[in-house]
Amino acid sequence: MTDPRLTPIAASLPSSVPFVGPEAQERARNSAFDARLGANESVFGPSPRVAEAMVQTDIWKYGDPENHELRQALAAHHQIKSANIMVGEGIDGLLGYIARLFVAPGDHVVTSLGAYPTFNYHVAGYGGTLETVPYTVDHEDPAALFAKAKETQAKLVYLANPDNPMGTWHDGETLKKALDDLPQGTLLVLDEAYIDSAPTGTAPDIGPDDPRVIRMRTFSKAYGMAGARVGYAIGAAPLIDAFNKVRNHFGMNRAAQAGALAALQDQAHLASVLEQIATARTRIDRIARDNGLTTLPSATNFVAIDCGRDGAFAKAVLDGLIARGIFARMPFAAPQNRCIRISCGTQNDLDAFAAALPHALADANGG
Amino acid sequence: MTDPRLTPIAASLPSSVPFVGPEAQERARNSAFDARLGANESVFGPSPRVAEAMVQTDIWKYGDPENHELRQALAAHHQIKSANIMVGEGIDGLLGYIARLFVAPGDHVVTSLGAYPTFNYHVAGYGGTLETVPYTVDHEDPAALFAKAKETQAKLVYLANPDNPMGTWHDGETLKKALDDLPQGTLLVLDEAYIDSAPTGTAPDIGPDDPRVIRMRTFSKAYGMAGARVGYAIGAAPLIDAFNKVRNHFGMNRAAQAGALAALQDQAHLASVLEQIATARTRIDRIARDNGLTTLPSATNFVAIDCGRDGAFAKAVLDGLIARGIFARMPFAAPQNRCIRISCGTQNDLDAFAAALPHALADANGG
Repeated sequence: MTDPRLTPIAASLPSSVPFVGPEAQERARNSAFDARLGANESVFGPSPRVAEAMVQTDIWKYGDPENHELRQALAAHHQIKSANIMVGEGIDGLLGYIARLFVAPGDHVVTSLGAYPTFNYHVAGYGGTLETVPYTVDHEDPAALFAKAKETQAKLVYLANPDNPMGTWHDGETLKKALDDLPQGTLLVLDEAYIDSAPTGTAPDIGPDDPRVIRMRTFSKAYGMAGARVGYAIGAAPLIDAFNKVRNHFGMNRAAQAGALAALQDQAHLASVLEQIATARTRIDRIARDNGLTTLPSATNFVAIDCGRDGAFAKAVLDGLIARGIFARMPFAAPQNRCIRISCGTQNDLDAFAAALPHALADANGG
Repeated sequence: MTDPRLTPIAASLPSSVPFVGPEAQERARNSAFDARLGANESVFGPSPRVAEAMVQTDIWKYGDPENHELRQALAAHHQIKSANIMVGEGIDGLLGYIARLFVAPGDHVVTSLGAYPTFNYHVAGYGGTLETVPYTVDHEDPAALFAKAKETQAKLVYLANPDNPMGTWHDGETLKKALDDLPQGTLLVLDEAYIDSAPTGTAPDIGPDDPRVIRMRTFSKAYGMAGARVGYAIGAAPLIDAFNKVRNHFGMNRAAQAGALAALQDQAHLASVLEQIATARTRIDRIARDNGLTTLPSATNFVAIDCGRDGAFAKAVLDGLIARGIFARMPFAAPQNRCIRISCGTQNDLDAFAAALPHALADANGG
């Protein structure tokens, strides 16, 4: 029963969840997963300094609505001004604010078919019309995205580099050149959630005050703080200030603010995590090959394994893994949904995955 | 410079902050406050179990988007169903979702003149038109609010019981009877942030499935977890489900979820905090009387002190307190702005306040 008092947009929206959480799946199967490899969390965890900083926080105090200390530290880290940085409740929260600022009913927004569903959720939530372009050889295609933006006079175009769910990436120079064809009036939302684990040169060399682009970064991936909800946007100062029109000013968790600051200050821990990610990527590739499968190159903390057939087959493999206690996910759209997506895990996690995969494949092959 | 790509509503909004945080004031005065008595935080802190639960949380994992365990525990605590409960990022976050669900440009919303600015911020942020009615003898006036809602065909009417910033309250029976005059088509947003410190019987005895009302509760006040951002709404199941249309599903901090659960399970700590609040209220009243001032009766964790003259005088007193290291706030609208608002503090906090007040009053009186 829809409440008759809802706005027309709200009434038209489904009560949907972009992703079902692993806890809900565990409740449904009445058993905990043995390996949590589905949400691209960092099982390697945050710096030990994060827990110290969080536990020392006076949680009875509201967080600083200006996120002053964290923004100052991020500005120093990136050698930009704090006026170019907006801290928010994860990239998800920031994407919601961006959609709210730019998307009114009838506005067009461009993304890749099968890219991040939560971005699409926010765009639809404000009445926007999504336009999609297919991946090109499992890469997001900047030229095609920007051409579609021009064709549809899009307000926003979304591009993740490195990409989720495929793990592929473009080098920064390629992206920077592609920007020449971004139409005037379109803002590029460049999701760099996975940039920390990407090769040097993947982040395009564009100034923070470039009004064409807003970049999204996070402490949820390589920094190991997904549960803390700390993301930030880098963009031109007037655009950054526009978040103050709509954001939940006191929305940041105070311990998360302190934890993110501590995480940023422990770059040695980040470096060690990046080594563990690299080791895990190699191991996942090895496990795939041991089972006659191939993987896509990855600049992220996960690897897409090509199951070699169609989406139904990959879904059967995925179901077989989940039935065996391995939480994983897969791309939504064809032909990328021939793959399953495995987050980098510990040696134990990947042992469990290696043990389960042959059985899941056998099931999918009809036993 | 306003970005020409913003939506018309976004372009029309100021980049404002409903409240300036104490940290910003400390940076401006280049000195920490001696007593933090301005944001109605609970200086008495949360249960010690909260820190234990938070530090044991795997912060590398996203929080459960269904908030299952916390909702189950809250349902048991209130003896209602979890389908009647929505957990969100503080009451502020939930009020934002409510405004988004119900308020489209041109829709009317009723509140008291001088009531919670963050609610007004959210309503304006979705293009709503605010209608206000004055306080009656420093109490919010349900009959006047509901009459104004009828007159303006309002989508929402906001009422805090107990009230902030005055600390006054109505008993539950009075509110329940007043609901008879709530017009059809208007939803009452009943903010019960301060209900834990109110006398028994302040919460109206209305069922969770009553479609006329949505109630807001929080762990930010008596439970001492303002920095964690955990609030919840109680309402009819279809209304609660509507939040799933627009909320940031993975927006809850995982440690905050665990901390709130631990806080709820330590009712003995809550009881001891309520005693400390009662003691502090009495002390604040005593300090006021020692300075020739009176206080308003309070059902909250703060006390409004009537400075006896106009808003300019109270503002001068407030400025004098702030200059002496006492963080406090005051009501925004006349005639309630003849008061200043002092949160319940520790003995040390209130010693500092007692020491500063005579000087602040002397300043305000022209030295």
